[in-house]
Amino acid sequence: MTPELARLGHVALETPDLAGSLSFFADAVGFEEVERDGDTSYLRAVDEFQHHSIALTEAAESGVDHIGWQTADPESIPAFAERLESEGIEVTWVDAGEERGQGEAIRFSTPTGHEFEFYHEMEKPDPPEERRSKLRNKTYARTTTNPIAPRRIDHTQLWDPDAVEFAEWLQEDLGFGVQEYYDREDGSRWGTFLSACGNKIEAAVIDDEAEDTSPALHHTAYKVDTVDDLFEAHDAMNERGIPVDGIGQHSISRGKFLYVRDPVSGHRIEFNAGGYLVFDPTWEPVAWTETDLEDRQWIGQIESKARVEY
Amino acid sequence: MTPELARLGHVALETPDLAGSLSFFADAVGFEEVERDGDTSYLRAVDEFQHHSIALTEAAESGVDHIGWQTADPESIPAFAERLESEGIEVTWVDAGEERGQGEAIRFSTPTGHEFEFYHEMEKPDPPEERRSKLRNKTYARTTTNPIAPRRIDHTQLWDPDAVEFAEWLQEDLGFGVQEYYDREDGSRWGTFLSACGNKIEAAVIDDEAEDTSPALHHTAYKVDTVDDLFEAHDAMNERGIPVDGIGQHSISRGKFLYVRDPVSGHRIEFNAGGYLVFDPTWEPVAWTETDLEDRQWIGQIESKARVEY
Amino acid sequence: MTPELARLGHVALETPDLAGSLSFFADAVGFEEVERDGDTSYLRAVDEFQHHSIALTEAAESGVDHIGWQTADPESIPAFAERLESEGIEVTWVDAGEERGQGEAIRFSTPTGHEFEFYHEMEKPDPPEERRSKLRNKTYARTTTNPIAPRRIDHTQLWDPDAVEFAEWLQEDLGFGVQEYYDREDGSRWGTFLSACGNKIEAAVIDDEAEDTSPALHHTAYKVDTVDDLFEAHDAMNERGIPVDGIGQHSISRGKFLYVRDPVSGHRIEFNAGGYLVFDPTWEPVAWTETDLEDRQWIGQIESKARVEY
Amino acid sequence: MTPELARLGHVALETPDLAGSLSFFADAVGFEEVERDGDTSYLRAVDEFQHHSIALTEAAESGVDHIGWQTADPESIPAFAERLESEGIEVTWVDAGEERGQGEAIRFSTPTGHEFEFYHEMEKPDPPEERRSKLRNKTYARTTTNPIAPRRIDHTQLWDPDAVEFAEWLQEDLGFGVQEYYDREDGSRWGTFLSACGNKIEAAVIDDEAEDTSPALHHTAYKVDTVDDLFEAHDAMNERGIPVDGIGQHSISRGKFLYVRDPVSGHRIEFNAGGYLVFDPTWEPVAWTETDLEDRQWIGQIESKARVEY
Repeated sequence: MTPELARLGHVALETPDLAGSLSFFADAVGFEEVERDGDTSYLRAVDEFQHHSIALTEAAESGVDHIGWQTADPESIPAFAERLESEGIEVTWVDAGEERGQGEAIRFSTPTGHEFEFYHEMEKPDPPEERRSKLRNKTYARTTTNPIAPRRIDHTQLWDPDAVEFAEWLQEDLGFGVQEYYDREDGSRWGTFLSACGNKIEAAVIDDEAEDTSPALHHTAYKVDTVDDLFEAHDAMNERGIPVDGIGQHSISRGKFLYVRDPVSGHRIEFNAGGYLVFDPTWEPVAWTETDLEDRQWIGQIESKARVEY
Repeated sequence: MTPELARLGHVALETPDLAGSLSFFADAVGFEEVERDGDTSYLRAVDEFQHHSIALTEAAESGVDHIGWQTADPESIPAFAERLESEGIEVTWVDAGEERGQGEAIRFSTPTGHEFEFYHEMEKPDPPEERRSKLRNKTYARTTTNPIAPRRIDHTQLWDPDAVEFAEWLQEDLGFGVQEYYDREDGSRWGTFLSACGNKIEAAVIDDEAEDTSPALHHTAYKVDTVDDLFEAHDAMNERGIPVDGIGQHSISRGKFLYVRDPVSGHRIEFNAGGYLVFDPTWEPVAWTETDLEDRQWIGQIESKARVEY
Repeated sequence: MTPELARLGHVALETPDLAGSLSFFADAVGFEEVERDGDTSYLRAVDEFQHHSIALTEAAESGVDHIGWQTADPESIPAFAERLESEGIEVTWVDAGEERGQGEAIRFSTPTGHEFEFYHEMEKPDPPEERRSKLRNKTYARTTTNPIAPRRIDHTQLWDPDAVEFAEWLQEDLGFGVQEYYDREDGSRWGTFLSACGNKIEAAVIDDEAEDTSPALHHTAYKVDTVDDLFEAHDAMNERGIPVDGIGQHSISRGKFLYVRDPVSGHRIEFNAGGYLVFDPTWEPVAWTETDLEDRQWIGQIESKARVEY
Repeated sequence: MTPELARLGHVALETPDLAGSLSFFADAVGFEEVERDGDTSYLRAVDEFQHHSIALTEAAESGVDHIGWQTADPESIPAFAERLESEGIEVTWVDAGEERGQGEAIRFSTPTGHEFEFYHEMEKPDPPEERRSKLRNKTYARTTTNPIAPRRIDHTQLWDPDAVEFAEWLQEDLGFGVQEYYDREDGSRWGTFLSACGNKIEAAVIDDEAEDTSPALHHTAYKVDTVDDLFEAHDAMNERGIPVDGIGQHSISRGKFLYVRDPVSGHRIEFNAGGYLVFDPTWEPVAWTETDLEDRQWIGQIESKARVEY
């Protein structure tokens, strides 16, 4: 069989101060804490139907434990394991429930050093009765959640000094498709924007131009409903004194953005509105070059290049 | 091989007065006429990357020629043809280009009498230079389009006196998944909301309670970006004296809606905002019953049951 | 001197069950309880800079105690008192603080039986430090308020079997201006839309077509920021099981609306978005006739004629 | 009598290339050309009920001819003239119709060198039948206007090396009220935000920190309906290659902004959404100091200090 990924599922992040980071992730941003297990807090966005999309663990310092991808079916897990091992990649099996709410999984380092997890099953726990929506296709009633709470996980931006190699490996070994890419004036590739689900960018792979650097997570993006929501979120961050890294719209993906960072761990969340979806199986990657559009930000700008290594 | 559908692609509609209907579809709603071929006008929504999502043909009276579904790959077309013929369904082959911009296709009647077309290839024609967006992931610049123009095709609502049979056939023979369904108090099914792409409802199959009726198309829905766009569209229709059938939000799908009808042909377009997407392959259908939510319209209401037969 | 009114300031309402009504006004709608004094709760909308815009008092049955208008200066209060008494209207003086937060005031019945209060001074109490916005031109930080909470009082709709007489008296004796009016096909006036501040409609005076009826308050309207807010508010009401009376847009005033009623008292609140402002002193009233626009609701509809008498 | 101003009415601007500037003001931004008289084009925003809010005249170089203020009544014009002349200010009378659509007016230089015009009457010309809205309280149907077209004039920002003196003169001699002000850490005043109408800031008077400078107009602001409109306008400017000076929200006034400049004349238009209104006659100016809020832009930023002198 040909193993297949279905979607970006979650990120597992490390923070030097769990309580401090929850002030950001839960209180300020509005993720729901679904479960606490020792030093790990499991968080879900308000319009997600699975157990968690963030696992946040207290550790010696900030870091990224893994990026979690859901497979299309249970059989894809061992099939991917076999393929990876045949390439000499060491695969670690993770028992069901070790990561709470999640079925059996594998973890491994990609050739350029990103930590990935593949899983298929994840619980769909009910929210408490008093917070549940009357709409059966919704989880929490919005009346009982933080008004700026983002809706669902959208994509990750991954920085890599060997970005071209990493992007090719994602396509060839994991079956990602390319939705867009951006080449510099000298012909070198700055970014490749890939999709596991086929409908939207889920991994933005960016050439890290810093020297002597390691692979890193620049941000994890969550969808919100409206552009007003970006301003509301910015406003809420200002009220709490949490620094923001800009508001505007990307050229690539057309996504409107707001970037904010957890002051404690440095992990960055993008509030993302708009963009577009691909349902056409004959989609051809959108090719950008620095000569036809110099501005990677169509509207507004981002003010920081900080990112967190694994 | 297992043939597979990728998505709802287009609808082919008939009108007794093409020029009159274009006053609605092109001038009022803002679809772009991409090509005219004899009595047929091919129309595309402003954020679509394919040749057309509506083919509008002058005929003796209003009708639905077919609903067009794009297959996941070229091989699925003959594979579907073989499967359908093995069930005794007559399949007609359509040459590439017979429907403009489209590759080879098959057409057939479903067992309960809906007219379907399966195709894979469709041209991606460039808009004229002076109307093209500077964003390479966009077709038309919004500055050059009707401000209320809908973005992309979303779903069709199909009425059938044998709705349960039709919905089951869509699942078993064509591989549709069920995203939601709604049962009446007596346990009978009012509606099944199915997906070919797996991410969103693309065929809402409704039990037609009228007597002595034939399968019919109730409406074709297109996405818009914001709730304001629904009000803008309603406003624009009022300014032009075009009747509207209501504004609000469905319980099922959570889609916010505005319904308007071509005064000439009676074909109805839904402007649709919001809703939700499914990327989780373990999604379980949302089960509604009349006892847990009587109101099929969560907000507002629809005022007409008119639909157009094939 | 010529006494002058500045604006609609507040409404004083009666309910048979204060705690029950606060479930609606404070918990569901999101007004802030500023002060409680015996059987009266004083409420402020989140973007108001004065002590209260609603006084809610427990009484034997639902009723309207008075509509409160702020005068342009302190001197206008005795000047109005003198004018009213010269017409044979009985004027009652209200000591500063009797209505909490408010300076000296007068109360009286208009010739057709509406209960009015004129006052000038009202406290500008600071919200508690932990809920105050960092923006000095804002009261509460939105992060600490109900997400659907309306912004500021906008207008009242007053029904009267002698509506024409009432509207004329408002102009001639109180100096209201007419912003718009609507005449039926037979030439009779259905509604006069008046302004004390000169910038927006503050008193919509409607001909009550019911028989043997008394003057009444149909609703009090509050501004919200966006059309999305109307849908969010409707959604929140549905989640709480509170009935709504429609969503849409008026022709007159162009205001987009959502009507909801306190299930306990029957008092109706309009969430209002959009509309327009008048700053031009040479404004001429907009004249509508049933023949040029039959639909008083431009978009959507209102489903109830309930109103509460004084 | 005490003469009184009613509101900011219009700006009269000069451009070295009228046709080039109309590409910006009419084609790109969406102002409607109401009348052309020789080298002057009269422009109106789509939701304005008067003849024009911009008069654009071809001249040797870019400049500001005058800022036009509407008086509360006709008698205020000679009364202001008398007052100004008594202070030694030279007043020039302008015949009715000399500025098209406008009644008799006076023009003069303020003590610090701003050019002002006072007028009361202005025509309310009907738009052509085919472009008129069915809503009698609207001018143009939105279906027939540029989708980003701003609604109505809101305020001007005036820079002055003697800003404190200018702001005091506006209060004492012209009766402006102060809605907000902002003081630097050293106690000096950076900006005073004044109102002629009493409801909103109409003149933002800013201390020009450049050396050897003259009074100047930094921008003229127009209201739009939503935050989405700011992004749509930014998008439209990008599509046309017109540079923008930032998007975001001011702390003062709470207005959300987009700044764009006519590439030909350098005149800047602010698209402005949100903010707040004052109807309370007891309003006390909001006092900001650099120590309690360093960021004059609450969200986003402005990238240029360019302004145009008289």
